Amino acid sequence: MHRPSLTLLAASLMLATGLACAADAPTTIPAAAVQTAEQLRDKAMHDDTAYKLVEGLTTEIGARLAGGPNDPRARAWMIAKFKALGFDKVYTEPVTYPLWVRHSEHGAIVAPFPQPLTLIALGYSPGTPKGGLTAQVVQFPNLDALKAADPATVKGKIVYIGERMQRYKDGRDYGRIGSPIRVAGPVIAEAKGAAGYLLRSAGTDANERIPHTGVTGFKPGDKGIPAAALSNPDADQLERVLAYGKPVTVKLDLDCGIEGQYTGANVIGEITGSKYPDQVVAIGGHLDSWDPGTGAIDDGAGVAIAAGAAKVIHDLPQRPERTIRVIAFANEEMGLWGGRAYAEKHAADVSTFQLGSESDFGSGPVWRMSASVKPQARGAIEQIAKVLAPIGVAYDPKRPGGGGSDLSQMHGKGMAALSLTQDGTYYFDWHHTANDTLDKIDPKQLAQNVAVYAVFSYMAAQANGDFGSAPGAFAHDGAEE
Amino acid sequence: MHRPSLTLLAASLMLATGLACAADAPTTIPAAAVQTAEQLRDKAMHDDTAYKLVEGLTTEIGARLAGGPNDPRARAWMIAKFKALGFDKVYTEPVTYPLWVRHSEHGAIVAPFPQPLTLIALGYSPGTPKGGLTAQVVQFPNLDALKAADPATVKGKIVYIGERMQRYKDGRDYGRIGSPIRVAGPVIAEAKGAAGYLLRSAGTDANERIPHTGVTGFKPGDKGIPAAALSNPDADQLERVLAYGKPVTVKLDLDCGIEGQYTGANVIGEITGSKYPDQVVAIGGHLDSWDPGTGAIDDGAGVAIAAGAAKVIHDLPQRPERTIRVIAFANEEMGLWGGRAYAEKHAADVSTFQLGSESDFGSGPVWRMSASVKPQARGAIEQIAKVLAPIGVAYDPKRPGGGGSDLSQMHGKGMAALSLTQDGTYYFDWHHTANDTLDKIDPKQLAQNVAVYAVFSYMAAQANGDFGSAPGAFAHDGAEE
Repeated sequence: MHRPSLTLLAASLMLATGLACAADAPTTIPAAAVQTAEQLRDKAMHDDTAYKLVEGLTTEIGARLAGGPNDPRARAWMIAKFKALGFDKVYTEPVTYPLWVRHSEHGAIVAPFPQPLTLIALGYSPGTPKGGLTAQVVQFPNLDALKAADPATVKGKIVYIGERMQRYKDGRDYGRIGSPIRVAGPVIAEAKGAAGYLLRSAGTDANERIPHTGVTGFKPGDKGIPAAALSNPDADQLERVLAYGKPVTVKLDLDCGIEGQYTGANVIGEITGSKYPDQVVAIGGHLDSWDPGTGAIDDGAGVAIAAGAAKVIHDLPQRPERTIRVIAFANEEMGLWGGRAYAEKHAADVSTFQLGSESDFGSGPVWRMSASVKPQARGAIEQIAKVLAPIGVAYDPKRPGGGGSDLSQMHGKGMAALSLTQDGTYYFDWHHTANDTLDKIDPKQLAQNVAVYAVFSYMAAQANGDFGSAPGAFAHDGAEE
Repeated sequence: MHRPSLTLLAASLMLATGLACAADAPTTIPAAAVQTAEQLRDKAMHDDTAYKLVEGLTTEIGARLAGGPNDPRARAWMIAKFKALGFDKVYTEPVTYPLWVRHSEHGAIVAPFPQPLTLIALGYSPGTPKGGLTAQVVQFPNLDALKAADPATVKGKIVYIGERMQRYKDGRDYGRIGSPIRVAGPVIAEAKGAAGYLLRSAGTDANERIPHTGVTGFKPGDKGIPAAALSNPDADQLERVLAYGKPVTVKLDLDCGIEGQYTGANVIGEITGSKYPDQVVAIGGHLDSWDPGTGAIDDGAGVAIAAGAAKVIHDLPQRPERTIRVIAFANEEMGLWGGRAYAEKHAADVSTFQLGSESDFGSGPVWRMSASVKPQARGAIEQIAKVLAPIGVAYDPKRPGGGGSDLSQMHGKGMAALSLTQDGTYYFDWHHTANDTLDKIDPKQLAQNVAVYAVFSYMAAQANGDFGSAPGAFAHDGAEE
């Protein structure tokens, strides 16, 4: 399908939804709504609802590995919280996915110098044979070198890639280095006949003996090879041992793997719109987390930010015109399962989604906003930007808005979306580790996020006109989330 | 015994050693020795021998729990290194101590909110009964509160103390808070009938999910109670759960304890003195380490600093007049076993120890020197201080010098001693943890330490006169090491 036909389709769908404005009339936000948004912003900056939510979630539930023992506990907790916050509607939508289970993991350099290795198995990694897997290590400086490697040099060995991530405000090294090495690396190594796979953790904490887990690119049904991440100091150690130039043998003993499938759920809470209850501003985070930490920054924070934003809107004297929908997604970590299920289910009604954005990059302050909306809604985005500017958010009109991790899937279906970029300078110090705990969250920074989500959600809900959601509307906007 | 009689005894002993000077003549360092010391200092500041030693020890051996599988490997490594460095004499002296073994440790909050706890068993902790120990937690803000507690409030419970350490250049909170809570706390709790003991790790890393081990005050033969340290974020978590005001139950499952005894050894390397081979400048560190890390800052660094200092002296065209003795002590961590054995063995010849100081506070730069020496040797100490001032060492003539951890025992017997205080601002971030790894050592800071030890060792070895070592000479100097 080509964009012109999509635009026509979008226009006709928008007319069909009963909006009073023409598709090419500019979308605007009434002055009263702007004023209320400013008040919401100032209130949210001092509201501790979100902090109390993430404190409660991490303290009362803790780690929330998708399908693990805390998965149903976390869902029940979230449902209870949405109800306690006074949301008008609370419900779940089922999400089914392969159940990956971690039992234990151990690793060690066997020769030439016996040393334990602090490591963690990666998502969808199969286990090693009982008693472990012992093999020689072959080192590559980066993913390109592995791609270029003669399979004969890899066959039967444990591939190790040691490229380092550096800290950036936008966390760019995760997309550039860490994520590809963790996701694509094991698949490439398996294809070349490797027996196992190790990487330097996809993390920016150069000196912490805490490894970073995360998902691999193995697909359900793949055989896969045992794959694990070393902490940064352990990666340094392995590299020092490799530098002696003698054959280095490592033993991996991973007890993990896919054990059937599991049905969890996205947990959804709504403030029902007073005028257009079926038109939805979608915000959220994901409720699952990796298991070694307590899922504070990833993504208790996101769930709390969205719920906290909805709560300050809920507490206004009047309901917003459109519905504010907070979605606590299931199993984002192992491949956007909740987001994909949601998008599959709601693709047909994408035009009812006014605007959406998910928070899933920790709790650093939002410093940049960008949007994928129809041209006639740029003015409304500028209105939102003007309310957000005093709390440090710069609007970049040249970048697309991808909607965040799970909601990227609805954006892919055609939902107008924002990107609300947080300061992620230290995010990858703690991401997917035992160190993802409440103490990493600054309550004031968290509140700034709540203010941002409250402002955009409310202003979008009160807009005269829409932001251009329509099936496939933004298929070529280049957003990457 | 009183000091006057000790001084007389010391004087007669010094005369007996054959020194040409009278006991009350000032000790001085010849100008040529001062000049050579300045050259040694400048050379050592750019020498990487020490860094290569600690790199090798942590890479080729790693963790060195006293009596563990790496204990004999480490001794063999040290002997080989002393020989490779060209030292004139390399030997060992046996040290026997109780063998404490760590097999595994797990902990969890059971109720009201099930949560795993990242913890580590403490030295000399007994294990829990098979299947673990589950008991209610009783919290105390500090050690005084536990001391004051009615035993009825403690009986059958797991005592928890959560006082925090802060970072200081001199690491004072370890002596003030961390060490007493870890060492005395379990003993007091046991005496009051507690079932177990937990503390917030004695560490200054407020946000790392890495607990700090260390020895308790349980004595061999004591029954003891299971005792472990929580990482700081886990202590925060436990305190949040306790703050709900409901009974909090914790399960400890520690498999550890004393399993007989072990005979290891202090490993000693010497540069033999050309004029007074039986008079000794004693320097060193301890070769053992705690087991979760690789013993880089505690105390691979100390061993490397001392050996590196001896090496630059070794490389002079001529041997120093007195012997430079580098001692790599056994089992400092579980109660100065190597230092005590050494002092017992050498108490009778304490007067042959010209001056001594051990390095055991990481690898931060030395910023302060103090000394416990006879008054007639203060001028020589000032001469040493003058050579060290350009590399950042300030002489404090009002403080005693305690000789460092193991050598404090020889000082206790009467050895003249220095304290060479390192910058320990970050030392307790990593002390006794998995994070005690090579990356925590700055090679330039390590080299500054080598320069300090080379300068004082050489100048003491070349002095005209002694520093006042004699049986019991400094028994009341107030040094605490």
